[in-house]
Amino acid sequence: MERLEQQFRFILEADKEKKIGRQTWLSDGSRKENDAEHAWHLALMTILLSEHANEPIDVLKTVTMVLIHDIVEIDAGDTYAYDAEGQATAHQREQQAAERLFGMLPPDQGEKLKALWVEFEERKTPEARFARTMDNCQPMMLNSASDGKSWVEHSVRLSQVLKRNARSAEGSEVIWNHMLENYIKPNVELGRLADDTAE
Amino acid sequence: MERLEQQFRFILEADKEKKIGRQTWLSDGSRKENDAEHAWHLALMTILLSEHANEPIDVLKTVTMVLIHDIVEIDAGDTYAYDAEGQATAHQREQQAAERLFGMLPPDQGEKLKALWVEFEERKTPEARFARTMDNCQPMMLNSASDGKSWVEHSVRLSQVLKRNARSAEGSEVIWNHMLENYIKPNVELGRLADDTAE
Repeated sequence: MERLEQQFRFILEADKEKKIGRQTWLSDGSRKENDAEHAWHLALMTILLSEHANEPIDVLKTVTMVLIHDIVEIDAGDTYAYDAEGQATAHQREQQAAERLFGMLPPDQGEKLKALWVEFEERKTPEARFARTMDNCQPMMLNSASDGKSWVEHSVRLSQVLKRNARSAEGSEVIWNHMLENYIKPNVELGRLADDTAE
Repeated sequence: MERLEQQFRFILEADKEKKIGRQTWLSDGSRKENDAEHAWHLALMTILLSEHANEPIDVLKTVTMVLIHDIVEIDAGDTYAYDAEGQATAHQREQQAAERLFGMLPPDQGEKLKALWVEFEERKTPEARFARTMDNCQPMMLNSASDGKSWVEHSVRLSQVLKRNARSAEGSEVIWNHMLENYIKPNVELGRLADDTAE
């Protein structure tokens, strides 16, 4: 029964991910979302959109990856995509968190999940590339739906969004084009995303 | 591009699931969880615990099932497990919601997800039986962790919990035994769950 106990201890600990806030507003702008909601949304997107991946992907592997990709933030906290200072120290904090959290599971499962977390971070496989595209697309969709609230709040500039998404087309060109045409360009035109690319 | 547009319209609509509140308190008792958080938790549990299913299950199919099992509540609202009156009318409301929501997707995907939702409700396949066990286990784990807060709040009695879980062992005997020994019995002993079974 030790194995089941370890699994349930991890599952209960994972509950804390619901309290890790993100900077993305829900589509109706009523409040910001949290990591667990974000991961659920990515998993649903992965299942529905996997047919648009540039390369064939293992859907269960990719879904598992997005379900656990932010779990280290239980210890390390969420670092906003455009917080350069936070990003610089996030890596080490997240490594320690990965050791502690995945270490709660039976060794075979803990190692498997940790490897998937590393794979997501390294973005070297078709699954990781697609998962990263999902991870960039979902907040952009919500930012656009909530009238650019998060972009305006943080004075985000177009160059930052383009830099963050420099590799989004590697997961899916079709989806990257959708993001560019539906979420980025209209919000630049509306002044919610400052165009600093001609500077 | 019509197909991608339909998919993204559904994905954006699904964002509303984050606003559908449940009666389960987070493990720390700070607030109640919502449907999206609950679905994320079930998906994670399904991946980690599938080895304990009574029968072999298709994990991706089961994960998809739990990710979308409550999406109809966007229109129909959440009906508390022990609200007999609400349960009586929930079915029709949820059927209408399923038509509208899954109908937003490209027909092949909409029909597939709707069939999975029906399969979950009917509980006739190994995947549905396991998914239903997850759906019963997760709130019980959180109720126990939060000192029985939801049970006390709604004056839930042991007979109700046992009735709701009459078929939980069909998904996984091992997990049902874990629920009984770790979540039910200790909370009956602590008086958080009134033992009315001798009445």
